[in-house]
Amino acid sequence: MKRFIFEQRVRWEDCDPGGLIFYGNYFRYFEAAEEELLRSTGTSEWEMKQKYNIALGKTDVGIQFFAPALYDDLIEVQTWIPEYDDKRYLMRFEVYKQGTETLLCKAHAKVICMQKGGERLRAREHPPELLEILETYAEEGARKEKIR
Amino acid sequence: MKRFIFEQRVRWEDCDPGGLIFYGNYFRYFEAAEEELLRSTGTSEWEMKQKYNIALGKTDVGIQFFAPALYDDLIEVQTWIPEYDDKRYLMRFEVYKQGTETLLCKAHAKVICMQKGGERLRAREHPPELLEILETYAEEGARKEKIR
Amino acid sequence: MKRFIFEQRVRWEDCDPGGLIFYGNYFRYFEAAEEELLRSTGTSEWEMKQKYNIALGKTDVGIQFFAPALYDDLIEVQTWIPEYDDKRYLMRFEVYKQGTETLLCKAHAKVICMQKGGERLRAREHPPELLEILETYAEEGARKEKIR
Amino acid sequence: MKRFIFEQRVRWEDCDPGGLIFYGNYFRYFEAAEEELLRSTGTSEWEMKQKYNIALGKTDVGIQFFAPALYDDLIEVQTWIPEYDDKRYLMRFEVYKQGTETLLCKAHAKVICMQKGGERLRAREHPPELLEILETYAEEGARKEKIR
Repeated sequence: MKRFIFEQRVRWEDCDPGGLIFYGNYFRYFEAAEEELLRSTGTSEWEMKQKYNIALGKTDVGIQFFAPALYDDLIEVQTWIPEYDDKRYLMRFEVYKQGTETLLCKAHAKVICMQKGGERLRAREHPPELLEILETYAEEGARKEKIR
Repeated sequence: MKRFIFEQRVRWEDCDPGGLIFYGNYFRYFEAAEEELLRSTGTSEWEMKQKYNIALGKTDVGIQFFAPALYDDLIEVQTWIPEYDDKRYLMRFEVYKQGTETLLCKAHAKVICMQKGGERLRAREHPPELLEILETYAEEGARKEKIR
Repeated sequence: MKRFIFEQRVRWEDCDPGGLIFYGNYFRYFEAAEEELLRSTGTSEWEMKQKYNIALGKTDVGIQFFAPALYDDLIEVQTWIPEYDDKRYLMRFEVYKQGTETLLCKAHAKVICMQKGGERLRAREHPPELLEILETYAEEGARKEKIR
Repeated sequence: MKRFIFEQRVRWEDCDPGGLIFYGNYFRYFEAAEEELLRSTGTSEWEMKQKYNIALGKTDVGIQFFAPALYDDLIEVQTWIPEYDDKRYLMRFEVYKQGTETLLCKAHAKVICMQKGGERLRAREHPPELLEILETYAEEGARKEKIR
């Protein structure tokens, strides 16, 4: 299994008066990691969105915290795909203090591929470029008939 | 059981190019709801932090999304305490489009009360003002020997 | 001259490790103040944007800081229109610690009304609802032939 | 004169429903550019803050906008020091769409070096590492007796 690695400096404006990252700002870093993961295989989220008129919507996100990320820390976001079907995928994230084995947090995001254009968004099949990306970072046996 | 109600206008700068709230920004609204819940019973998070030299740290947060909150929507964050012990509490959130029964998302946050001052933070017992607040918004039977 | 008053609690996640508001986050509060100013006269920015297919774009913004706004402070944003013409307006902001005469910062935003729909946005005349709002909060003599 | 170059991808969560960067979020990018400028000469803002117990406070910031930065654009922030004295410095920023000569915005930030530790912060002389950095990116003749 291949993990995508995204490095991020913990920024002043992302930290709170406690001197550590405001937990909600982790989702900024995860969103950036997801965009760069998609870009790493030759296309980009934005190109796919325009080409296929799709939206990639989150249906479930969460984080478990183990140790704080402090201002000016360099952190490493590791991302991979533990499971996906033809319309959905699950991403997992592990965040480490860069150059160490200190696990700062674990997170997940469930994503659904949707067609834009009408009043409401409806689930649709992943475009081929997206499927290819999912396979690149998928765990063994990640491809399912149907995930929830 | 009593729920704390926090109203929030969905702001332009909290929304993304899709026209709906960037999911990570929900945690801004939940943090504000939590602060106002604590303030509603006569003290405030900041007063307690200073008086007792404590920090209230999140150990686990998550959101499940059912319908989007759009720019300029008025939303209602309902908050309550489904369980707590003498050092931790769990908050639940349900977000509705104001004046409707449209559930936009459900969320949770696990919180631990910690003593500041040393190199590391350690779990400590809730100060009495905090316990009182937890009881005010607790579900029946929420008080546990120990929650995880 | 009438000033629009907008109260805001300085939130944990808007503050930095120095314990005071990250200066860039003031623009969040100013944006909210502008939206509520527009709403206070019976319409809303969003309604006008949809009805007339316009965008209200900033061309120049700035802040001068005199004293810090600290976490959990209640601040009062005072807003008014020192000058406007038929396509542009200038907003001024003064921020006080609520209930005091302590001026925390002064700010401004120049706004241009633009027509959406083509490839590029072009300046256009304010819709009548917007003109009415500008007049409500305008300084004496604010109406100009042309502002820069 | 040497300019410091900082590249930034315009992120989904930094853009608004108009599809372009929310103007207040530029200050996030400028803050990151400033941190990396300081780091580029061998120390870091955080190291200096801890070593000398200083704070670098903004007293005046502003942006003039010429063209929008859109979601997923790669932008180049160019930064330099047009003037400084022994306690203050002025930074200027120009933002270009990467690889083009399209100027998106110009900005500035006035910064004051302050001593922490007492009830109030007081202006103090720049530590030697900071002075060296200012000289590295200073315009010719930037060193003044006293700037306002």
